[in-house]
Amino acid sequence: MTGTLSVIGVGPGDPELLTLKAVRLLKETSCICVPKGREEGSSLAMSIVEKAVDLTGKEIIEAHFPMRKTKLQGYETELDAKWQQTVEEVSSRLLTGIDTVFITIGDPTFYSTFFYLYDRLLERIPSLNVEFIPGISSINAAASRAKLCLALADEKIAVLPATYTEDLKQTIEEFDTVVLMKVHRVFFMVRNLLKDIGLLDKAHYIVRAGMEDEKIFDDLRKVNEEDLNYFSLIVVKK
Amino acid sequence: MTGTLSVIGVGPGDPELLTLKAVRLLKETSCICVPKGREEGSSLAMSIVEKAVDLTGKEIIEAHFPMRKTKLQGYETELDAKWQQTVEEVSSRLLTGIDTVFITIGDPTFYSTFFYLYDRLLERIPSLNVEFIPGISSINAAASRAKLCLALADEKIAVLPATYTEDLKQTIEEFDTVVLMKVHRVFFMVRNLLKDIGLLDKAHYIVRAGMEDEKIFDDLRKVNEEDLNYFSLIVVKK
Repeated sequence: MTGTLSVIGVGPGDPELLTLKAVRLLKETSCICVPKGREEGSSLAMSIVEKAVDLTGKEIIEAHFPMRKTKLQGYETELDAKWQQTVEEVSSRLLTGIDTVFITIGDPTFYSTFFYLYDRLLERIPSLNVEFIPGISSINAAASRAKLCLALADEKIAVLPATYTEDLKQTIEEFDTVVLMKVHRVFFMVRNLLKDIGLLDKAHYIVRAGMEDEKIFDDLRKVNEEDLNYFSLIVVKK
Repeated sequence: MTGTLSVIGVGPGDPELLTLKAVRLLKETSCICVPKGREEGSSLAMSIVEKAVDLTGKEIIEAHFPMRKTKLQGYETELDAKWQQTVEEVSSRLLTGIDTVFITIGDPTFYSTFFYLYDRLLERIPSLNVEFIPGISSINAAASRAKLCLALADEKIAVLPATYTEDLKQTIEEFDTVVLMKVHRVFFMVRNLLKDIGLLDKAHYIVRAGMEDEKIFDDLRKVNEEDLNYFSLIVVKK
């Protein structure tokens, strides 16, 4: 009997935004796989979970994902080796019947690194028992903190990773709400574009929603270089 | 001192998908405002909460929202009166210092009826103390249940209410993932369109994700009339 892999979204940062199911599974499961990315140094997912659940005595497997480099050439070999190591570690626990959880910030289906690992785990264990436990995603958390309605009735939402800039103007024209994820690297360019098309006053900038050092701007003109952060997004609501 | 209104997303149906914060606030607060829509007869939000929190002794205010009629003429007057009644009931508690929660299925910022009420509450109590507690939205729940990655890296997501049909084809071409909400009324038309553009095999249909009578289809050809439901969505992932 192979163990079950539970892929758990731990929400955006506030440990109180863990679900009851996430907490129960974290308490019940003896082995926890934790992603570690370069962006944050140590695992943000782990720091959230530690505040809500006593992890004493549990086995922790660290999965190293250099998050920003995932698509760049030259890093693929290093990445491949690290992923393969994580796959082997997780697989060996599952194959000996040990249930394992993989924790991921936000929601596991929403821009989560877990899916980079999923195909390889399926190759290693074709009959993999896996369940996904949804978590509060960054866009829902950010909208709640900014008291913004993302959409109502027949409104349309676009979620863009903020690397598509050439068609941003068109998307903003066609959709009622546009959410620009991880906007820190293109913030000033996006701000200029919003100004040009007369929508600067319809935009909010939310940094680290639900975390202790959260910042919310309803005026993008007030945003400075030091307010830019990996965990940030812009919501444009017409 | 006016009370605080906490607008709480209670998730898609599984009471274990309530957040710790939602449960705490529901336990601490003596007055709960509950939307009742026509679609479901009784309040789905209430049935979720009742399974996780003992509501004995709490005051329950019922807010009647005929959900599907919100934009049709002829119903507006009736709707206006009902909303105004809810506004008055909630306001009177807040103005006498009683903290109140408003519960809503899914996430409060994501197609939730609460925002129909919000402006009126602000008119009535301009200094309204309000906080939004995010919940698991239907799209995250559905994607988790179907084990689908909504987006990864620089992929783009569109969320459409499935009433826009003329530009659906174009949106599907432009986005990596398209989520069609509340698709029950246009299901067969959407299925035909997906067949025409060769994407039928890239679509999942998820009904009542996270509820006891959930259904998941990875082949839309197998969906029949009886599988159509208000709480349903299609995810097209190219």
